[in-house]
Amino acid sequence: MTDIKQILAADAELVNDVLRGYFARNDEDIKELLESERYSLFAGGKRIRPFLTLEFCKLFGGKAEAALPFGCALEMIHTYSLIHDDLPCMDDDDLRRGKPTNHKVFGYSTALLAGDALLTHAFGVAASNDLVESNAVAQAVKLLSEQAGEFGMVGGQIIDLAGESEKLSLDKLIKLHSMKTGALIRAACLMGVIAAGYPIDSEEAVSAAEYAEKIGLAFQIIDDILDATATEEELGKSVGSDAESNKTTFLSYYSAEEAYAYAGTLTAEAVSAISSYEGSEVLTDFAVYLLDRKS
Amino acid sequence: MTDIKQILAADAELVNDVLRGYFARNDEDIKELLESERYSLFAGGKRIRPFLTLEFCKLFGGKAEAALPFGCALEMIHTYSLIHDDLPCMDDDDLRRGKPTNHKVFGYSTALLAGDALLTHAFGVAASNDLVESNAVAQAVKLLSEQAGEFGMVGGQIIDLAGESEKLSLDKLIKLHSMKTGALIRAACLMGVIAAGYPIDSEEAVSAAEYAEKIGLAFQIIDDILDATATEEELGKSVGSDAESNKTTFLSYYSAEEAYAYAGTLTAEAVSAISSYEGSEVLTDFAVYLLDRKS
Repeated sequence: MTDIKQILAADAELVNDVLRGYFARNDEDIKELLESERYSLFAGGKRIRPFLTLEFCKLFGGKAEAALPFGCALEMIHTYSLIHDDLPCMDDDDLRRGKPTNHKVFGYSTALLAGDALLTHAFGVAASNDLVESNAVAQAVKLLSEQAGEFGMVGGQIIDLAGESEKLSLDKLIKLHSMKTGALIRAACLMGVIAAGYPIDSEEAVSAAEYAEKIGLAFQIIDDILDATATEEELGKSVGSDAESNKTTFLSYYSAEEAYAYAGTLTAEAVSAISSYEGSEVLTDFAVYLLDRKS
Repeated sequence: MTDIKQILAADAELVNDVLRGYFARNDEDIKELLESERYSLFAGGKRIRPFLTLEFCKLFGGKAEAALPFGCALEMIHTYSLIHDDLPCMDDDDLRRGKPTNHKVFGYSTALLAGDALLTHAFGVAASNDLVESNAVAQAVKLLSEQAGEFGMVGGQIIDLAGESEKLSLDKLIKLHSMKTGALIRAACLMGVIAAGYPIDSEEAVSAAEYAEKIGLAFQIIDDILDATATEEELGKSVGSDAESNKTTFLSYYSAEEAYAYAGTLTAEAVSAISSYEGSEVLTDFAVYLLDRKS
């Protein structure tokens, strides 16, 4: 057993240092925008996506440094998606990671633009990775765009919104989460593989994609269970919001026990996808950590 | 004299064909999102930014094909910025290019996500340019991110919003437009230079940046004049909105005649920046066309 929490924290520290560097530049005229971006970016996220990028890069023989710009780009995109998801025209949430949501602090228009700026800046960060061959950089940017766009994260968000007015089939629910949450997790794992020098059609990439798909879905199932069973204090965000907004969740199809067992099976499959690679313990333990998390 | 309108139309047709290809993929579950994106992307824009990319690429010996993905990426980013600018929390506009704005047709949340998706997709399009060396592709993506982000277009938008509640100094007004409109025009010209194979620190790039800066500012000055003097029918969008929202414009500092003379001087400087290159007539005539436009 590795000390997964300690590894997560160490990787997060690396990521935070690099992110702080990207946001060191100031300009009095756009101070409010920069503060709004930093507010959400440094709100205490666990840096799960960059962790996956760093650890997959290391698993396949790459250096963490080569994965850092990609990991930071992923975190910036994740952060923008949270800011936009919380906006009044979307989920209209007041609380995120135990703090008021971005628009509650900075106002609607600044929050919108902070999200736009984070998304835009993220691609520049990924493209500036000079520790990776430039054809691999282009490949990573393309992958990031695909997984974060219409046929990935943003598309998942549209299906999610539709799910508020109609009950989604189980297949569509799985598709929703494969896009909304899974796609960025897939990008995170695969960008680690690319940072290590392996192409997107390599056996290593196929294994990483399999791992990503399984933990992505397990992650969402656990999220649904926690939303229904945890307290606001434990989660640092509003709870019970799924039931309140009448959203289809995995608990619309399974009991909490069945859902947890399903997530367990997926976790075992994720572990199996990478078990043949030497040094896969960190990613194995991470999958189990996600399954057992309480927030 | 070239037939600039005919060249613009021919370039726009090339761009539209490629854009249609990027948006050929369908998925019933995200139909509304894709329709929302296409609605604004194919609303009849003049494709000024891709034109600049194509023509600068050709001016410096490159092929138009190599510039097309970059030009399309710019148009997608321009389109996303219009969708988000029109949202109720921003300028709250009902009319754009003679048609109802995106959120008026598709609703607030879909319009927001359509903007996010266009921005995200744009970087994938730029990164997929395989007619350009991959280090130049990475350079182009980085440039696009810088010019469209906090210290470019999005930052300009924040300063613009601040200008609704306070009168901006002339210096800050120029800075605002250099960021809000100028930055993407700069990216357009420079991405053409990059597509032609010249690095960002070449003499060719310096000339292109000078041209971009001058026509960008002239473009905005003419916009301010038209907003105050043209009819809604001529412009295809709401007019008089600057005065109504109490925005600082160039007409806060100059009479329409003085502003037009200022734009004329800038146009002459733009022309001068590229006049030593053989084949610069198209871009010269374009600068004059921008100056004399009525919409």
